[in-house]
Amino acid sequence: MEKLKNIEFSSVKFENGFWKYRYDLNKDVSLKSVYEQFEKTGRFDALRFNYQKDKKFYPDVYYDSDVAKWIEAVSYLIISNGGHNEEQKIIDALIDDMANNQLENGYLNSHYIQVEPQNIFTDRNMHELYCAGHLIEAAIAYDKATGKNKFLNIMLKYVDCIKKAFITEKTAKFKTCGHEEIELALVKLYEYTGVKEYLEMAEFFINERGVDEPSPVPESFNQKQIQCEVPVRKLEKAEGHAVRVVYLLIGMANLALKNNDKDLFDACKRVFRDIVDKKMYVTGSIGSCKTGESFTTSYDLPNLEAYSESCASIGLILFVLELQRSELCAEYGHVIERVMYNGLLSSTSENGKEFFYENPLEIHLDSVGKETSVAKERQTKLPIRHRLEVFTCSCCPPNINRIFARLGDVFFSESENDLIVNQYGALSLNNQKVCLKMITEYPNDGKVSIHLDRCEYQKIYLRIPEWCDNYNANGNFEIKDGYLVFDGKEKTIEVDFNMQPYYVECNPKARANVGRVALCYGPVVYCLERLDNDCDLNALSVDVKEKVTVGQKESYNMQTLCVKGFKDQEFSSLYRKEQGKKQEFNLLFKPYWTFANREECDMIIWVRKK
Amino acid sequence: MEKLKNIEFSSVKFENGFWKYRYDLNKDVSLKSVYEQFEKTGRFDALRFNYQKDKKFYPDVYYDSDVAKWIEAVSYLIISNGGHNEEQKIIDALIDDMANNQLENGYLNSHYIQVEPQNIFTDRNMHELYCAGHLIEAAIAYDKATGKNKFLNIMLKYVDCIKKAFITEKTAKFKTCGHEEIELALVKLYEYTGVKEYLEMAEFFINERGVDEPSPVPESFNQKQIQCEVPVRKLEKAEGHAVRVVYLLIGMANLALKNNDKDLFDACKRVFRDIVDKKMYVTGSIGSCKTGESFTTSYDLPNLEAYSESCASIGLILFVLELQRSELCAEYGHVIERVMYNGLLSSTSENGKEFFYENPLEIHLDSVGKETSVAKERQTKLPIRHRLEVFTCSCCPPNINRIFARLGDVFFSESENDLIVNQYGALSLNNQKVCLKMITEYPNDGKVSIHLDRCEYQKIYLRIPEWCDNYNANGNFEIKDGYLVFDGKEKTIEVDFNMQPYYVECNPKARANVGRVALCYGPVVYCLERLDNDCDLNALSVDVKEKVTVGQKESYNMQTLCVKGFKDQEFSSLYRKEQGKKQEFNLLFKPYWTFANREECDMIIWVRKK
Repeated sequence: MEKLKNIEFSSVKFENGFWKYRYDLNKDVSLKSVYEQFEKTGRFDALRFNYQKDKKFYPDVYYDSDVAKWIEAVSYLIISNGGHNEEQKIIDALIDDMANNQLENGYLNSHYIQVEPQNIFTDRNMHELYCAGHLIEAAIAYDKATGKNKFLNIMLKYVDCIKKAFITEKTAKFKTCGHEEIELALVKLYEYTGVKEYLEMAEFFINERGVDEPSPVPESFNQKQIQCEVPVRKLEKAEGHAVRVVYLLIGMANLALKNNDKDLFDACKRVFRDIVDKKMYVTGSIGSCKTGESFTTSYDLPNLEAYSESCASIGLILFVLELQRSELCAEYGHVIERVMYNGLLSSTSENGKEFFYENPLEIHLDSVGKETSVAKERQTKLPIRHRLEVFTCSCCPPNINRIFARLGDVFFSESENDLIVNQYGALSLNNQKVCLKMITEYPNDGKVSIHLDRCEYQKIYLRIPEWCDNYNANGNFEIKDGYLVFDGKEKTIEVDFNMQPYYVECNPKARANVGRVALCYGPVVYCLERLDNDCDLNALSVDVKEKVTVGQKESYNMQTLCVKGFKDQEFSSLYRKEQGKKQEFNLLFKPYWTFANREECDMIIWVRKK
Repeated sequence: MEKLKNIEFSSVKFENGFWKYRYDLNKDVSLKSVYEQFEKTGRFDALRFNYQKDKKFYPDVYYDSDVAKWIEAVSYLIISNGGHNEEQKIIDALIDDMANNQLENGYLNSHYIQVEPQNIFTDRNMHELYCAGHLIEAAIAYDKATGKNKFLNIMLKYVDCIKKAFITEKTAKFKTCGHEEIELALVKLYEYTGVKEYLEMAEFFINERGVDEPSPVPESFNQKQIQCEVPVRKLEKAEGHAVRVVYLLIGMANLALKNNDKDLFDACKRVFRDIVDKKMYVTGSIGSCKTGESFTTSYDLPNLEAYSESCASIGLILFVLELQRSELCAEYGHVIERVMYNGLLSSTSENGKEFFYENPLEIHLDSVGKETSVAKERQTKLPIRHRLEVFTCSCCPPNINRIFARLGDVFFSESENDLIVNQYGALSLNNQKVCLKMITEYPNDGKVSIHLDRCEYQKIYLRIPEWCDNYNANGNFEIKDGYLVFDGKEKTIEVDFNMQPYYVECNPKARANVGRVALCYGPVVYCLERLDNDCDLNALSVDVKEKVTVGQKESYNMQTLCVKGFKDQEFSSLYRKEQGKKQEFNLLFKPYWTFANREECDMIIWVRKK
């Protein structure tokens, strides 16, 4: 069933261009910024087991996972670039602290050991196995990056402890964790160690999920919220907490591919279809609802109230990377591209130091604090207006660190004989079978040149982007299932995926977007910010027949787009007989992901059609 | 400052026509339905002081006000129609129970006396003075209707008790009540008894409001929520709980007119402007937000999430009736007309037995339960889809009873020499100065004939409705400030306010309604229901230049409106490049207020413009 392998980031190197800029911003700025904030907020101290001593911080239940993701990011950066000696020192000391404080039976969780050891493995919603999973992922990455195996050994001991508590002796007070992650980590651990037992543990947690589960804790979460209403093989839809859904799916898909388990894989594909056909924002982000951080009903895609958590975008990419291994299917590349250039990029500020947890698709400052008369704690959620350095629950920033550190993973996959180019960027790929350089200004320009120094692949498949209706390519090629297929013996492949501004419309069942269009250029979704368009953004409309001009390049080398539009006439009363008066108004669009980097202002993606 | 008087309902009699149908529905059905539900839910038993005996019900803090409003409604019906002997028996027995259970010091509240006498006058948010105010209104009405003064005497004793606790001895633990109502009731009590002391008490509660008030209880309500952030004379905007705002304003405006208090009246007019210019739905309903049942920011008028409580519509009518006394100004009549034919009428089902608490301006069943994964108690509010017979907090149904029982109040006002016709309906007016009959099919037709049998007024002013651009009138008349002015000696006045379907547009600052229009006919706002238009209602659009056909008359003699419109082409993916394909679709509109009387289905008022 596994027909393709994704080529790992370790053989991909970004060359001067968009992704190099973005990769370096993460490596040189974001990583450090997250580290500093996590030191300030006691997250590292939690794993140093300093709580009893000074109680200057409180080790919250998810702190281990925050630090783990940061270690994982550092590890990937070491794999690609070496160095990071400062960070290694910090991590090594932390590993010593973990070793010194790990319980005799292998248990390791900084919250429970320090705050409430009597309650270990009693509360399903307390993220214990979620933290364990992230620590396992970090330990694998650090082992791979440095060859130092102390961390991994700590985790193997902890995994034995988990096995006893949940499987062999069943002393734990719950069956499966309220927040999935352990499943995908155990499959990875099997991949890395080859120890079958870990795969079997993953199978256990996946197969038992939703089978006679007791009521969830807290009761205000229902079983759907944590994907426990039915056994996971019966899942039909994306329901509940969005990050949990995609984390579960990553583990399920990987396990299904390993075990040739069609039944399990089909469940993954059904949920994928539900997400992509009914529940994904045009930016690729998912999970539209703050309450429960969850998926809601089909086509419920509010822009102002969009939750669309950064972690969910990251999880979606990782899930689709698993699906991508099952078959040659351009749609997987399309979805990853949509997330990469929009919902993922928007997560980070221009300076690399601040992050969105939620990624709103509209900002309307007049709606901020709209419940003027209601105390803050009773106000329903209003959109965040700017990015922050750290959050109380700060899962997203280190997740952003690790996804960009491994972003090379998304570009290529391979079958036994063929190389598949899934994404485009200025980079080189150098592994046993190929040495190539891809030269492109993507996503600012659709021209792509691939220079092959060495190539053992028979065919090279280039995904035709979803947005591309028109392309030119040199030499001999075939078109097959949404790919341009070249011979592996070519020295140079040159393709121009002709990039023109275009409007996207949304399925008319999506109430939020009816009568509106989103302006895009290549894979990039554009937006209007009030700083560039000084009026009520919802009072603007475009005539889709009007020519869109590609304007000058701005920061990150991204183009602006300009079009003559209209603005509804202002009037003073609240209602009047319809007059439909409009005046011309020149609209200036910028890439969505660059929004909220100046002062706070209104923003919209979906502009009304005249 | 008081230039006009409103002519009371007691001299107005509805003749065969729209308002007679509606008035009788209330008198013959709704009144009884509310009574039965209130018996079932222990509301009458609360005031029978039966709680200690059987504890079969719990006398909640607002129960007295529910019963009081029902008594007030019965009283008004007795004034107009006599009879209601059954109800009088019930009320008389209840009055005996009140007398027997009133505390020695005059205190009377069924919750506190029976449940927590130790906490009398300690909690500002517990509706004690609100209940007292409604009981005072009921006692006045019952005294006026029947001449039996026992109830009023009970209340006068209670008012003395309140005066001691809040003013002379200040034993109460709070200064002003969290829910306004006592103010307007005390002014009314002064009007009815002529006792100046009651007016002074009203002054006290109005003038002290917002002056060094302690923090509100519960803390989650802030001072704005209960109009206590600033002294009421400094109010600039409608903020906080919508019903409380308008109840406060009724008392303020009446007091200001009595005292010639320009400062106080100007505050009322500022808040009126804020409501009408920025915070009123096209249906005339107000208070857009469920959280806190409150006003929000300017132009925040969501349709699906509209709260627009029936009590707030009623309060707005009563407030504007006070404003209307200050000057000849057509706008006051416009606002009352807007509420009367839309937000007020929608409150009651066709069968007269069920009521809306909230009155949504859109129903979208796919959004119901949209937070699929979240337990009910954590779900944010979703629109109510049908009317109910009773609510846990059931303030609206008896308020609906009393407003329709006194609806005759809105039609006429008078100056020393002139009669002003504010609203139109088939009715007769018979008092010392005039005997007239108004013949009209309003709101289904704009032709109005007024036959004057006897008239001592010099001039008769007919308000030109806000929606009317074009009218014909017989005889001699002048046009003055939005009125047609006829001589009082005319025998017959005939005017045709030409009724044609027309579209209304909303101020483009109102995000919810941009690019949309509301179809209206005369004062009536129309809507689309999915039962008549089987498709996603938000996928429909109209070409405003297309002729709207007035269709056959339906229930309540109301016309349907038909227009050729368009439906966005359906497609299966979530996004695609803009194609803008539409197909023709015949739209069938019905009056908004008749919605939700068949099976549950989608509904919209604001339809997209093609």
